[in-house]
Amino acid sequence: MVVELISVGTELLLGNIVNTNAAYLAEKCAGLGLSCYYQSVVGDNEERLSAAIRAAADRADIVILSGGLGPTEDDLTKETAAKVWERHLFLDLAVKMQIQGFFTKRGMNPTENNWKQSMVPEGAVVVNNPNGTAPGLIMEKDQKCMILLPGPPGELVPMFEESIVPYLKALQPGVIFSKTVKVCGIGESQAETMAKDLIGAQTNPTIATYAKTGEVHFRVTALADAKEEAKRMTKPVVEELKKRFGSHVYTSKEKVTLERAVVKLLQKEKLTVATAESCTGGMLAARLINVSGVSESLKVSYITYSDKAKRNILGVKKGTLEEFGAVSSEAAEEMAKGAAISANADVAVATTGIAGPKGGSGQKPVGLVYIACNVKGKIRVEKYQFSGSRMKVRENAVASALTLMRKCILEYRETAKDE
Amino acid sequence: MVVELISVGTELLLGNIVNTNAAYLAEKCAGLGLSCYYQSVVGDNEERLSAAIRAAADRADIVILSGGLGPTEDDLTKETAAKVWERHLFLDLAVKMQIQGFFTKRGMNPTENNWKQSMVPEGAVVVNNPNGTAPGLIMEKDQKCMILLPGPPGELVPMFEESIVPYLKALQPGVIFSKTVKVCGIGESQAETMAKDLIGAQTNPTIATYAKTGEVHFRVTALADAKEEAKRMTKPVVEELKKRFGSHVYTSKEKVTLERAVVKLLQKEKLTVATAESCTGGMLAARLINVSGVSESLKVSYITYSDKAKRNILGVKKGTLEEFGAVSSEAAEEMAKGAAISANADVAVATTGIAGPKGGSGQKPVGLVYIACNVKGKIRVEKYQFSGSRMKVRENAVASALTLMRKCILEYRETAKDE
Repeated sequence: MVVELISVGTELLLGNIVNTNAAYLAEKCAGLGLSCYYQSVVGDNEERLSAAIRAAADRADIVILSGGLGPTEDDLTKETAAKVWERHLFLDLAVKMQIQGFFTKRGMNPTENNWKQSMVPEGAVVVNNPNGTAPGLIMEKDQKCMILLPGPPGELVPMFEESIVPYLKALQPGVIFSKTVKVCGIGESQAETMAKDLIGAQTNPTIATYAKTGEVHFRVTALADAKEEAKRMTKPVVEELKKRFGSHVYTSKEKVTLERAVVKLLQKEKLTVATAESCTGGMLAARLINVSGVSESLKVSYITYSDKAKRNILGVKKGTLEEFGAVSSEAAEEMAKGAAISANADVAVATTGIAGPKGGSGQKPVGLVYIACNVKGKIRVEKYQFSGSRMKVRENAVASALTLMRKCILEYRETAKDE
Repeated sequence: MVVELISVGTELLLGNIVNTNAAYLAEKCAGLGLSCYYQSVVGDNEERLSAAIRAAADRADIVILSGGLGPTEDDLTKETAAKVWERHLFLDLAVKMQIQGFFTKRGMNPTENNWKQSMVPEGAVVVNNPNGTAPGLIMEKDQKCMILLPGPPGELVPMFEESIVPYLKALQPGVIFSKTVKVCGIGESQAETMAKDLIGAQTNPTIATYAKTGEVHFRVTALADAKEEAKRMTKPVVEELKKRFGSHVYTSKEKVTLERAVVKLLQKEKLTVATAESCTGGMLAARLINVSGVSESLKVSYITYSDKAKRNILGVKKGTLEEFGAVSSEAAEEMAKGAAISANADVAVATTGIAGPKGGSGQKPVGLVYIACNVKGKIRVEKYQFSGSRMKVRENAVASALTLMRKCILEYRETAKDE
């Protein structure tokens, strides 16, 4: 089945916000086995929105609209969609009560505007919105459907997961099952080369490749009559990917991120951790702190951007900084050593590098980063050369630091086993 | 004049990447005074791409295509655009030499594929790409034009700034001049209310409002026959905005970010700074470190996520944590006090809060954040209640911390003046 996305909002046309909704919906739809050939963005304008809806409904089986369901006069996605499919709007009392409840719970009063949101197109299915006042709507006509979602990601995402995914699954002939194999520490092109024959040979299950910073995800999707069957079909492909990528596979669970895998590993091995960051300046700590419950493991992070801080807080030797510079294997090693001592942590990770755009030289170009990982006194230092903007270099350094942590903890676990 | 954007790429349709190019181009075009009513995304498919180009060229004066200029068989934006406007492709020797030079400089050899990129549509203007092998292209026909740009943002952005902006400016009757007034510490709706009459009354210059996390930007754009004239026209509006928003205006320069304004202020007042972060976990430091040259001012950042770290590193009293909890005005104050002492810094900022999604309670709901700022012993603590996801709460806390720092340093400067 073919799906088409229409994002509604003047703020998108003005470049005021980035269209993360479209990326989210597109990824989800691809995971559900739907084909998407067009996405469009259109403003809050009846004539242009009508034209966009007509064109999309002509081309696709499913049209997903997001945005323009708010209470103001400007918001006209619902009104326009209803007009295109010749539906009258009527007051839905259940929706009205929900809106009233939403405001009462927050000790606020709805304004007259808000009742506009309780008007529902004839025959539409109302989708509950626990995070806002605009309900979602599903309209069906001649084997086609239109799905209307609120624009704020905090409302759209939970609604899509809870209500729209089951609806779309039920629309399809058969059942879709997906499993994602997540790989770190291998470059995108190398990973693709290693899996190219597999990707080329598959039609059901299919393998989609997603390159993230420092990671590659392989999503294996099978379509079958029953879930068990689809699951069974993905299994050999998932196993083959795991075999090929070995210890580079950090998870095959949808919700596990790289930082979560690292934190889990720390918790399992009962290891505490500290970070000492120079070029990544807090971004590594920020990613670890994405993981709820990390406070038991993360003792402290030191952001030692200046040479002085490296010396005073981490005990990096003046001679080391003078002889090798702050961006050197030697400095990274001393940072990781000092951080573990200073924080009294089992594991310490240190980053030092040239994020750019200035500060590079022939010998030490922009993008050069050293990362050291100290696990109970055993320190490993790695040298990296990244390219791209200041932010890109730092993001790559963070992903590499997580990958290196994971590698060193796994080695420590192996050694501990042997003893 | 009307512009329309077409982003080409299967990776966008699959949700593999977020379409930041469209947001960038849309914002730039709005700044140039161009109207944009549609954006679309289409895959590397000749038939669908042709249809998208025809529709866009029908509706708009300027069509900007991005992506699909690569060397592989899949890349067919140039070929399709040329076909739609009935142009033959011919080999451009200058482009071929540039491609050769690009590879030679990097000690690499081009593959046979790469020569595809030296084919240029008849009559097209070739736009130099210093960051890649795909040149940009401009084709004109019947008062309309099509602009083809490479997809990677690292190539698209510099090319747009250097070559396309001047071209688009020259297309327009008159000259566009923009000035942005950036405001912090005032909510979006309040800021809009305060400027509503101004926004409503203006046609030339126009005022566009951009809400960012913790900030609101007003872009004042004037169209005139000459630059001086356009500049003169924006002036009274910019002055009026500055008057209304007073000390909340942190800059009216395009390239100055909030963190940069804060760092500049620190440098001007010769103040050193330290951060002590709990809920923001390094994100505040990471933003300060966005500013190249911050190392002279930023002594160190402590990420003290656990109670133990707050006590050991910052000297927060056990009694304070027990009586008031780690998320309290008292704890924030002690954190800012301890950080300044421990780092020997003039300014210390501390954040502590409940980022969620778990950990909230009736008395201390998710989104509650305390931020303390200590300037040479004078400590101010503010309480905030944010909403949204864990990341949203943390981003808001970072923006508020920067705003509070700015406010406290300005107060310090005033006091110092008086003495």
